[in-house]
Amino acid sequence: MPATVTTFDPADLTAQEAYKILIGAIVPRPIAWVSTVSTASAGGIRNLAPFSFFNGVCGDPMALMIAIDRRGPDAAVKDTLRNIEATREFVVNIPDEALAEAMNATSADFSPHVDEFAAAGVVAAPSVKVAPPRVADAPIGFECRLIQVVHLGDRPLSGSVVLGEVVFGHIRSDLVDNWRIDASLLAPIGRMGGHFYTRAAKDMFKLPRPGGAT
Amino acid sequence: MPATVTTFDPADLTAQEAYKILIGAIVPRPIAWVSTVSTASAGGIRNLAPFSFFNGVCGDPMALMIAIDRRGPDAAVKDTLRNIEATREFVVNIPDEALAEAMNATSADFSPHVDEFAAAGVVAAPSVKVAPPRVADAPIGFECRLIQVVHLGDRPLSGSVVLGEVVFGHIRSDLVDNWRIDASLLAPIGRMGGHFYTRAAKDMFKLPRPGGAT
Repeated sequence: MPATVTTFDPADLTAQEAYKILIGAIVPRPIAWVSTVSTASAGGIRNLAPFSFFNGVCGDPMALMIAIDRRGPDAAVKDTLRNIEATREFVVNIPDEALAEAMNATSADFSPHVDEFAAAGVVAAPSVKVAPPRVADAPIGFECRLIQVVHLGDRPLSGSVVLGEVVFGHIRSDLVDNWRIDASLLAPIGRMGGHFYTRAAKDMFKLPRPGGAT
Repeated sequence: MPATVTTFDPADLTAQEAYKILIGAIVPRPIAWVSTVSTASAGGIRNLAPFSFFNGVCGDPMALMIAIDRRGPDAAVKDTLRNIEATREFVVNIPDEALAEAMNATSADFSPHVDEFAAAGVVAAPSVKVAPPRVADAPIGFECRLIQVVHLGDRPLSGSVVLGEVVFGHIRSDLVDNWRIDASLLAPIGRMGGHFYTRAAKDMFKLPRPGGAT
């Protein structure tokens, strides 16, 4: 007997309901812990915040994407997006299980004047090709330059898709062999719906691709 | 003592190496099992293929993204991208653990003339607002209309970012309560590096956001 299906037309949902469906349905999501700095005229303040509408895009160019939504009833632009648009530089740090609490602490709404590395007690390390520092203890860091931002609206819960090219990278040496990264040693965390996370490497299984392609 | 760090400049890597780093570092990734149809003049052939450079984008509009790379040494456009650009319609089906083998079977390189629902033994169900059918047994299906494609190159392993608006949705009724989706009942799978997948709901933990925001 076919299962009973609940249908919806997004036109009949609030933006909050549509968002709730997306974060419950599209799981598990990888986590980009993004560091940026504001412009010199805005004080060069360091910002650090996690985003889970994040993924890779392609290998040539080596590129990734982050979608950043507007905040609150006035649809304010988040510091991360404002800094990326102003400076065209950011670092995507990959948090592991040991960094989960510190990462979560940086999801609070800080004023743009607050140095979020200092506020969350996160140690910074200098980047090589971009101004924003990386998270020293993150197992992986991708220094990125902005390719393009695609804005999908300016309402609360509207999003902007940030496409970035990786221009330099850092990987903790014990994790990587011939550019293959060991998932069990990485101890990655993923975002689920609500307030939940997953320890993604704890229950893995293997399915070779048909035809042997990689 | 700080950990030893291996660094890289993507300019010194092959596209295959850059891709390998991305799929090993950006984990766990959600899986979009995408159904499309070719144009009437191309036979209206049904296509079905999985993509893990996939995520939500925002709630208003209710939107998601898939990045589709070029295939093989001649950088051929995949059927999914060609169909989406030609018809502007697609369905994102979310596979659960029970569908993992069938989903993996559709990652093979089929000719554009092959009906991949039939080839993989996947049962189709009609969509409501778009022409491509959904996967009948998938716990969740998002009918989408194309917003925009951003092409980041035309070389092997170059990618195209497909942004789609969700115009209708299907959720198995037992999974959803007030638009909250139960992760344990969904039994979602996520993509890791290499040939590995994760059972994402098996080892979850909760971290409430500071300040109580959702």
